[in-house]
Amino acid sequence: MSSVLSKNQIKVVKSLSQKKNRQQLGLFIVEGVKGISEFLNSDYSLVNLYTTKPIFEAPEELLSLISDADLKKITALKNPNTALAVFKIPEPKQDLDPGLVVALDDVRDPGNLGTIIRLCDWYGVKSLICSLNTVDCYNSKVVQATMGSLTRVNVQYVDLESYLKTHSIEVFGTFLEGENIYSSSLPERGIIVLGNEGNGISEAIESQVDRKVTIPQFGIVKATESLNVANATAILLSEFRRRTIEK
Amino acid sequence: MSSVLSKNQIKVVKSLSQKKNRQQLGLFIVEGVKGISEFLNSDYSLVNLYTTKPIFEAPEELLSLISDADLKKITALKNPNTALAVFKIPEPKQDLDPGLVVALDDVRDPGNLGTIIRLCDWYGVKSLICSLNTVDCYNSKVVQATMGSLTRVNVQYVDLESYLKTHSIEVFGTFLEGENIYSSSLPERGIIVLGNEGNGISEAIESQVDRKVTIPQFGIVKATESLNVANATAILLSEFRRRTIEK
Repeated sequence: MSSVLSKNQIKVVKSLSQKKNRQQLGLFIVEGVKGISEFLNSDYSLVNLYTTKPIFEAPEELLSLISDADLKKITALKNPNTALAVFKIPEPKQDLDPGLVVALDDVRDPGNLGTIIRLCDWYGVKSLICSLNTVDCYNSKVVQATMGSLTRVNVQYVDLESYLKTHSIEVFGTFLEGENIYSSSLPERGIIVLGNEGNGISEAIESQVDRKVTIPQFGIVKATESLNVANATAILLSEFRRRTIEK
Repeated sequence: MSSVLSKNQIKVVKSLSQKKNRQQLGLFIVEGVKGISEFLNSDYSLVNLYTTKPIFEAPEELLSLISDADLKKITALKNPNTALAVFKIPEPKQDLDPGLVVALDDVRDPGNLGTIIRLCDWYGVKSLICSLNTVDCYNSKVVQATMGSLTRVNVQYVDLESYLKTHSIEVFGTFLEGENIYSSSLPERGIIVLGNEGNGISEAIESQVDRKVTIPQFGIVKATESLNVANATAILLSEFRRRTIEK
């Protein structure tokens, strides 16, 4: 079953490093044994699985046993790990989860989006709403950083301003000044908006926020300008969820 | 005052991308206007400041106005931002802060260490203890990610096992199984140990932990293996500090 990659296969896989090609073909890449296994055990549809070791359970016609040299031709990683798989990008589910929802206003860093998806998974947030300028969740760096969590969180790209306007659920936004999250009453249901790494929440989105909240600083010298957006998400989700235990 | 970089200057600056050279010369690099300004306003000693615009207040003999082309020769960034400065690595202060201390057991990712330093600054943790295999805090990616917080947090590299043995302060370690941090009593004073990205806390360090704590998962499918180490730090520091408000 051992095979040699064709020029066309190499071309298709490599083209998926670009968002426009992922969208046109409806395909994305997962690398590494652990990540691929998570996607194989999910609702995602496998298209091709290229591996240097016969360790996966997958339909034979989708499996190619390739050489290390061929894996190096298609990987985006410096040190590729055994396998690379191509999956179909699913249609996003349109239902809003009735519980806690996280919304991102132009988060640009793939690592940040990836760890935010992991946090949503950890804290049982099933719906992540992204503004159209937020980095693509099928970017391979994002997929890598999610460690498989992408299979359990429904990510939707929407016009965030219109989205917030049409939903009556309470919208929380993180700002440098606002209610102290440690002493505020926080509901079990709500949309938590996090802003762009450099600029925070945009004015258009700010006008849709019902409650401005802040994570207070504890240092004597209050000089740190802001927390990393993924860390702010971690602290907020922790704070919203711990209240459900207290009740 | 405009000047052209000598070959030797370029060689010295570029050599500082390697830890062994930073340690031998006792120097490290800060890039970008904002980061450099934070270091100039701190106790750190400036050695050289190379800038394409005369916007800094610094002793004239340490300042070089250079061309964009010369800045490109010495930067480690894809898009260098106006200036690059060389500072002296200070002697670490040996005093243990009497409050909350964070200790890292072989954290390897520069971005993780950088955001952990920012978190320490935000939450008023003045002392960060790193095992000898933790990534160097004067690595330029770490310095970049700290956004100036490195000027306010004292980072020490120590044999972590011996260090924990010789301190009588209560040691907390994060594990997949342990006391639920949301319902545990947490003191104002303590050492919080976080482990390596892939392997968590090593056995040698685990034996020095007094209290194993865990951040509970809230998802229905409990499949995410672990949180990113910087996010776990964010959640723990948030949880320790919020208790001081409740009191």
